[in-house]
Amino acid sequence: MGVSEDYFPDEPKRPDMKTKCPGPATIAKLEELSKVFDTKAAFFVTDFYNSLGNYICDADGNKMLDAYCQISSIALGYNNPELLKATRTREMAVALTNRPALACFPSTDYYEILKDGLLSVAPEGLDRVCTAHTGSDANEMAFKAAFLYQATKKRAGKPFTEEDKTSVMNNQTPGASDMVILSFTEGFHGRLFGSLSATHSKPIHKLDIPAFQWPVAPFPTLKYPLEGFEKENRAEEERCLKDLESILTTFPHQIAAAIIEPVQSEGGDNHASPFFFQGVRSLTKKYGVLLIVDEVQCGGGGSGKMWLHQHYGISPDIMTFSKKMQNAGFFYHDPLLAGDRPYRQFNTWCGDPSKALIAKAIIHEIKDKHLLNEVNKTAAYLYAKMENVRQKHLKLMLNLRGKDRGFFVAFDLPTVELRDKFLYTCRQKGVNMGGCGDKGVRLRPTLVFQPKHVDILVKTIDEAFDQLD
Amino acid sequence: MGVSEDYFPDEPKRPDMKTKCPGPATIAKLEELSKVFDTKAAFFVTDFYNSLGNYICDADGNKMLDAYCQISSIALGYNNPELLKATRTREMAVALTNRPALACFPSTDYYEILKDGLLSVAPEGLDRVCTAHTGSDANEMAFKAAFLYQATKKRAGKPFTEEDKTSVMNNQTPGASDMVILSFTEGFHGRLFGSLSATHSKPIHKLDIPAFQWPVAPFPTLKYPLEGFEKENRAEEERCLKDLESILTTFPHQIAAAIIEPVQSEGGDNHASPFFFQGVRSLTKKYGVLLIVDEVQCGGGGSGKMWLHQHYGISPDIMTFSKKMQNAGFFYHDPLLAGDRPYRQFNTWCGDPSKALIAKAIIHEIKDKHLLNEVNKTAAYLYAKMENVRQKHLKLMLNLRGKDRGFFVAFDLPTVELRDKFLYTCRQKGVNMGGCGDKGVRLRPTLVFQPKHVDILVKTIDEAFDQLD
Repeated sequence: MGVSEDYFPDEPKRPDMKTKCPGPATIAKLEELSKVFDTKAAFFVTDFYNSLGNYICDADGNKMLDAYCQISSIALGYNNPELLKATRTREMAVALTNRPALACFPSTDYYEILKDGLLSVAPEGLDRVCTAHTGSDANEMAFKAAFLYQATKKRAGKPFTEEDKTSVMNNQTPGASDMVILSFTEGFHGRLFGSLSATHSKPIHKLDIPAFQWPVAPFPTLKYPLEGFEKENRAEEERCLKDLESILTTFPHQIAAAIIEPVQSEGGDNHASPFFFQGVRSLTKKYGVLLIVDEVQCGGGGSGKMWLHQHYGISPDIMTFSKKMQNAGFFYHDPLLAGDRPYRQFNTWCGDPSKALIAKAIIHEIKDKHLLNEVNKTAAYLYAKMENVRQKHLKLMLNLRGKDRGFFVAFDLPTVELRDKFLYTCRQKGVNMGGCGDKGVRLRPTLVFQPKHVDILVKTIDEAFDQLD
Repeated sequence: MGVSEDYFPDEPKRPDMKTKCPGPATIAKLEELSKVFDTKAAFFVTDFYNSLGNYICDADGNKMLDAYCQISSIALGYNNPELLKATRTREMAVALTNRPALACFPSTDYYEILKDGLLSVAPEGLDRVCTAHTGSDANEMAFKAAFLYQATKKRAGKPFTEEDKTSVMNNQTPGASDMVILSFTEGFHGRLFGSLSATHSKPIHKLDIPAFQWPVAPFPTLKYPLEGFEKENRAEEERCLKDLESILTTFPHQIAAAIIEPVQSEGGDNHASPFFFQGVRSLTKKYGVLLIVDEVQCGGGGSGKMWLHQHYGISPDIMTFSKKMQNAGFFYHDPLLAGDRPYRQFNTWCGDPSKALIAKAIIHEIKDKHLLNEVNKTAAYLYAKMENVRQKHLKLMLNLRGKDRGFFVAFDLPTVELRDKFLYTCRQKGVNMGGCGDKGVRLRPTLVFQPKHVDILVKTIDEAFDQLD
């Protein structure tokens, strides 16, 4: 495929809005659904049967260009024919009908599915995979891997004591660990109890939920465009690294691992430079702390590399994934990260072969159609056009960011109200986008978002700003 | 279907062992797989293509009668034709290809899928569902629901304070909660950080992992057969209820919810009587504590009722499910359990329509073929035959239990070594079973386990005991 060819020949040529969004059919369907399922966060009801490629169709038949893609989790467009084909194989029918307990009864074909799929895109040096179920779950399994690894090293072959075994049954040390996971301000790593303790994006994500007292290091607050504030940004990153080192040396409990997103997504599409990430890697190494890179939202090719951290020249100990892979888990190298004996890192399913098959099909298509190249080319076109819009709307479109990071492009509006109005306005014009942080708008299109889609997206953004002015 | 008819006409007539289990093909495949995936807990590699009905096929072509069923999670037998059919529909292809972010962009057909599937078997009074991803995840979402519910009630309409919002970003009270979840000794509720804090099955599940300091009440240690020790067992249950009430009245932090399994499975197939469960329900009501019944392993029909707690005449506030439903989540009634505003109980996927379609197909088949009736009839036959074996092996087969609880039949051996040897011996004879607790053996066959399978199972158990003697 070249950028000028159509990836989805039958896709709509442009958005087609028949009603407001949400329209009457969405409203009726939400009323019905809300009687049995929580719908308070719903934007609109989606007709997935009539969605195609980069166009999402709602219950009213409105067809919108989608630059949000189920919160960054549709890699190849709606009803992608290669994925539809993968769902209709014997392998898929057998995987869905007979979901295995993979740790106890692994399937004859799981090695091939992993090897030919997920492992073929593992970051260099990470040659094993632990499959999980969601991004939060992947992160929590990574935390557990880190705790088990550090405790096993510390124990140095000595057996568990009777006190370990008795105390742990009451959640007390020494059997229960007092080790911790370090995370960064504004980071988002999920919403289960461990992952939520490492999440610091917005109060509403955390209020009224118990949390572990784990340390938080500052994530740099950079000025955009990065190239305009190199000196200030470097100073800010140095300050953050200094703070990180101070926590690493003074925190009263052992830090098992640090977790970081390569671009903080939910927290506001906050970027940092390779210098900062290299600093984090080198400090964690220096103090014997494992580094977990959370690629749940950033991974899967949208950045123009398979994993966003590959832009930074760093090698984590563990890298978690989910969303665009339609499968979750983590990559690692050291076998000790799977625990030193059975049943320590364990659960009934330990993944899902049906999801591993989908991941394999997505990965094959990314490779076959050279989609990372396409992303890079289209993204350069996108960023240049966005910069033009910014020049036109300097007071409304703030902090444009994500240059050279593929489609990970974002900007802010002056207030949360204006941001929400902007997103609503764009939706009425047939473009679906998502917010992040307090005032941010994040672009998360598919990997098959082409220049013709960019033209519509950018024109709509421009017009929406005109309307807000 | 009647018990005398064949549900799977093409199923093997009996086990067929060509090699030891694990045999050479399993060993070779595990060696290969272990280079990329943790296999330390593997029993054998499974050929799901050649498994059928109640017979599981391993990589060596050994065909074993399966009374473990992927740790209690295969409801209708391997390669069930009704499920294979469900995997080949357009609905399934679209659900797998376009996995939605269900809270933000629910699909046009999700209401129908839920209504016609999961909700049609919701326990009386629980008319809403929150879909999740695994049993652990379902339990943690239930915990969060309870925390949000109690905090919202306590706040009584007052807005969050600035202190709430600032403190919670550092995981501190008052924004973070100091409320707790009460659980029971020997209970198992999963292995994520919150669910593991409520789990007290075995030290190896918990060692070296941080945990919340949540209260634990005693689960009764009954003597079996229950009908032989009515007085002692009643006294033990009264003692446990008294201890529970004492914790409920004295624990220094508010108890948001109590979680309990209707039969403690992983912890050793520990039963309690309806009297005990009614007592727990009445005490939790009295002290304003929500009751979560964890049906992750017990639910889905194996007990002869759709949910095992329905044997006890109690109504929980929340009931979680997973495993046999091939879908996870919880049922509830009070809308406040979904949070008082959006994004409090939230995650990207909030379930999976492809799994909801499988659950629907399973539920339809349970109803169409009256499988609960079949389970009850076959289970009565099973229990009577097991009782005969017990009479023959009084020193080896201890604490036979599960009368009138469908297939939830279990027994102990005198030591963990004998139990493990017993399971190994049975596997060589072509019957796959699983352990639980320290010395327990739990039966977890499919819902289409018929008297002819019982005959083979019981004969094998009998012979294995003969061999151990």
